[in-house]
Amino acid sequence: MTTVDSINSKFMEPRVANHVPLSPLSFLKRTAAVYGNKPATTYNGKTRTWSEVYKRCCLFASAVKKSGIKRGEVISVLAFNTPEMVELQFAVAMAGGVLNTINTRLDADTIAVIIAHAEPAIIVVDAELTAQLELALTQTHSSEKELIVIPCLEHEAGRYHFAKEILYDDFLESGDPGDSWSLPESEWEAYGLNYTSGTGGTPKGVVIHHRGAYLMAMGTVPAWGVPQHPVYLYTVPMFHCNGWGHAWLNALVAGSIICLKKISAKIIFDAISEYKVTHFGGAPVVLGLLINATENDQKILKHSVQVMTAGAPPPPAILEKIEHLGMEVMQVYGLTETFGHIMHCAWNTDWDNLDFSERATIKARQGVQFTHTEETEVLGLADDKPVPHDGKTQGEIVIRSNTLMKGYHKDESATEAVFKDGKYFLTGDIAVRHPGGYIEIKDRLKDVIISGGENISSVEVENVLYRLPGVACAAVIAKPNEKWGEIPIAVIELKEDTEYSETEILDHCRRSLAGFKTPKEVVFKEIPKTATGKVQKFLLRQEYDS
Amino acid sequence: MTTVDSINSKFMEPRVANHVPLSPLSFLKRTAAVYGNKPATTYNGKTRTWSEVYKRCCLFASAVKKSGIKRGEVISVLAFNTPEMVELQFAVAMAGGVLNTINTRLDADTIAVIIAHAEPAIIVVDAELTAQLELALTQTHSSEKELIVIPCLEHEAGRYHFAKEILYDDFLESGDPGDSWSLPESEWEAYGLNYTSGTGGTPKGVVIHHRGAYLMAMGTVPAWGVPQHPVYLYTVPMFHCNGWGHAWLNALVAGSIICLKKISAKIIFDAISEYKVTHFGGAPVVLGLLINATENDQKILKHSVQVMTAGAPPPPAILEKIEHLGMEVMQVYGLTETFGHIMHCAWNTDWDNLDFSERATIKARQGVQFTHTEETEVLGLADDKPVPHDGKTQGEIVIRSNTLMKGYHKDESATEAVFKDGKYFLTGDIAVRHPGGYIEIKDRLKDVIISGGENISSVEVENVLYRLPGVACAAVIAKPNEKWGEIPIAVIELKEDTEYSETEILDHCRRSLAGFKTPKEVVFKEIPKTATGKVQKFLLRQEYDS
Repeated sequence: MTTVDSINSKFMEPRVANHVPLSPLSFLKRTAAVYGNKPATTYNGKTRTWSEVYKRCCLFASAVKKSGIKRGEVISVLAFNTPEMVELQFAVAMAGGVLNTINTRLDADTIAVIIAHAEPAIIVVDAELTAQLELALTQTHSSEKELIVIPCLEHEAGRYHFAKEILYDDFLESGDPGDSWSLPESEWEAYGLNYTSGTGGTPKGVVIHHRGAYLMAMGTVPAWGVPQHPVYLYTVPMFHCNGWGHAWLNALVAGSIICLKKISAKIIFDAISEYKVTHFGGAPVVLGLLINATENDQKILKHSVQVMTAGAPPPPAILEKIEHLGMEVMQVYGLTETFGHIMHCAWNTDWDNLDFSERATIKARQGVQFTHTEETEVLGLADDKPVPHDGKTQGEIVIRSNTLMKGYHKDESATEAVFKDGKYFLTGDIAVRHPGGYIEIKDRLKDVIISGGENISSVEVENVLYRLPGVACAAVIAKPNEKWGEIPIAVIELKEDTEYSETEILDHCRRSLAGFKTPKEVVFKEIPKTATGKVQKFLLRQEYDS
Repeated sequence: MTTVDSINSKFMEPRVANHVPLSPLSFLKRTAAVYGNKPATTYNGKTRTWSEVYKRCCLFASAVKKSGIKRGEVISVLAFNTPEMVELQFAVAMAGGVLNTINTRLDADTIAVIIAHAEPAIIVVDAELTAQLELALTQTHSSEKELIVIPCLEHEAGRYHFAKEILYDDFLESGDPGDSWSLPESEWEAYGLNYTSGTGGTPKGVVIHHRGAYLMAMGTVPAWGVPQHPVYLYTVPMFHCNGWGHAWLNALVAGSIICLKKISAKIIFDAISEYKVTHFGGAPVVLGLLINATENDQKILKHSVQVMTAGAPPPPAILEKIEHLGMEVMQVYGLTETFGHIMHCAWNTDWDNLDFSERATIKARQGVQFTHTEETEVLGLADDKPVPHDGKTQGEIVIRSNTLMKGYHKDESATEAVFKDGKYFLTGDIAVRHPGGYIEIKDRLKDVIISGGENISSVEVENVLYRLPGVACAAVIAKPNEKWGEIPIAVIELKEDTEYSETEILDHCRRSLAGFKTPKEVVFKEIPKTATGKVQKFLLRQEYDS
């Protein structure tokens, strides 16, 4: 009888020939060989092919190794979505380094915290951001670091800021075109170090791996229906979750990446129309930008555009208007810890004939596991058991996937805390499951308000507030209260030239919400947001905690 | 400084949450959950959804475990492309078993050899093939094995052949619907055991693994441009290389699989037209069947159909006619050892405007590595170095890929022989690389004829012979010769009602070939082929070796 041991005998152990570490670097190498003449990056009228991009990546990797950097050392990058940033999504790992992209919208203090924690061997910076970096480096006393500067069109070339500074292309020149690079020994090796933008406080360093990056790109193709040679507009900042892995995705399908340094409605419409963009991604705020654009800036699109949106469910009003513009929206859900999207609102053609509001209701759900996600479950807060698919019972979303981080850099206890017994990753997001299994987020675990023993979803109350046309941003938070434990209060940022009284707000809420859910106070003020536009409730809460 | 050790620290080792064994079983589970209501298999007018197919697979796995079969034991299957065969592509592995599909066209002797070698715990057989199996089992003296019979429409139900026999659906009934199944502990575990059809002699048992099966399906999506919900006609026999992994592929993209027990031009055209088939695969012999069909059987297709063809390059004449029928052909290359396709003639849109003969010349090339293939190289026969991309210098194709077998079952020396130093798998196929890197097969290593110290490619001579319209099949082999070492002789099978004299054949060859390449003898006879239609040159050679 054949047994498990005989069919998996010793001589059948993995070899170099049949067990190759999974890495998105293989996509780049293959596409440079097969579709080397196809456009890879386009920026300011200049296009480079995949074979040119690959050569530049090889040079970068060679130059890094020549400068004495060792395997596993960090290279930090503070830069915009220029072609160099696309190259760095591969070139750092080709050198055996770990890519640490830093949010360009962060203040110098936070940048200093990240640099002190990441301890990069080299920093790559866009010339436009050198002043900001200078400030941060003064704080970390690490001005002796090697700096590579991406020249900036708007700034004079050669305006040197640092002692050890070299222009990006000069650095490439120092590489040896004959040098070779290799895949890591293990696909589990670190690929990147991404600091979470921190709606929850201090940034944590998420360490991602080659295996996950490979599978992230592979799994996105069937789930998003990406064809060969898409034209991809890079509106998602690449400093954020490796721009959701879309540089790897484009290397896999030999896509044409249109780079943008800054975004505006006009810039996006012009690019879509000029380059016949087929795919792009963006937070709902980007979609809002497009539908609120002036008629002069908007373009009638002659082709359909696939849009991946993440960060918050797109409100029906935005969905309706964006579809009228010729764009098809797929909502995805993910975290920095999950390499970006791990769930998506997978469309079922059975719903094609539903009326718009029903379709919008479904499209606002975070949905189901991506192709590369192994399991998404919602576990009851009290009993830790999968919640029924009733659209009501709330629980925490937990994930099992090959696209989950290795852990938090230098932070074992935070790592253990989010890996529940090692079996699941805890997202901290509260959700329900609808009949059919689709998941809909109701709140962040921390954002549930418990008033008189009743749970209040702050998102539910916020959704009611958003129905007022003059509300630009709303955040509902808990305020400690002797009698009720906590009471909900509404913090509201109004659109320009709009005014509401507290009574108008409260009356509006009472019409739609149970009494205990209606905010007990209204505060009109600017709401603090992260650099990626997420509301920082912890800052608001701090004001009321004392 | 962050180092390779600190960024890959001990607490960052893989966990159950972030390191899940890759397996196509995950595709089935996900699609049953997300697209459970979509059609999975259709046969004889009966359609089952993905959720139904998943439930039946779970029942099969449960029933296998209940019958006492242990992890790693083999389940052999002698069956046609019915829905049961699609289920078995998953269900056996879900039970922890190893799927061994046997070529239904084999004679009882060879089936006996395979069963004796594979030592299955259970055999599943189509009712139509029980007599053949009975013969084989008598030879192996293993008639006490448990047999599961797939009922056959053409045969009476309940016609029992064996002592321990149960109908497939009754076996499912014995499973427990509440039973669970699990992924293997390691993605390297055996998934299947596929005996090569043996153009080279005795069948060898290729052991494939979960990891490769997962990546095979994932990589096929971008390279073949497979959308969500394709309609896939299963013309490739699933006993052959797991039908090139297309059951897994369809589970990944929630495709609709149209099953066929037998194929003919009429059956294929009817199915394509009735079900609006978008994709199918087949050897050039299947393409030949379609273009040679009578006008009555051919259907004008109103939609375009993607065809993956493998086994031999499609001759330009076939390509031209098949494209006229509305089918787009992609040639792929692979071996049982590589899970099927590992190279494909990746089309470059730059070639769209070439004239037909230039496009046909390119399409006849085996091409470049698939998305999931890590490296394809052609190493010079003398110096073992990559050959120049000159379209002339011949070498052996070698492969590095995650879709390469673990090894040959119970055959360590054969395994070591094909894994060159563990670094590459040796295909035994002789090829050149064209400028641009595309690979074109010239011959099997064994089929090179060395006459007077000169290499003669038997394929080159065969191609010349095929230009004669009356030649149905041609095989050029070496005959030992005292003076020249070897001389080429042509074995020719003529089409019905066709005649050529030896002189006509030789004159035709002399007009196109160098003298030493021109066959020295012509033999007219039926040429032995494998069950999948490959010429068995070793049988022809045996006649001349003595």
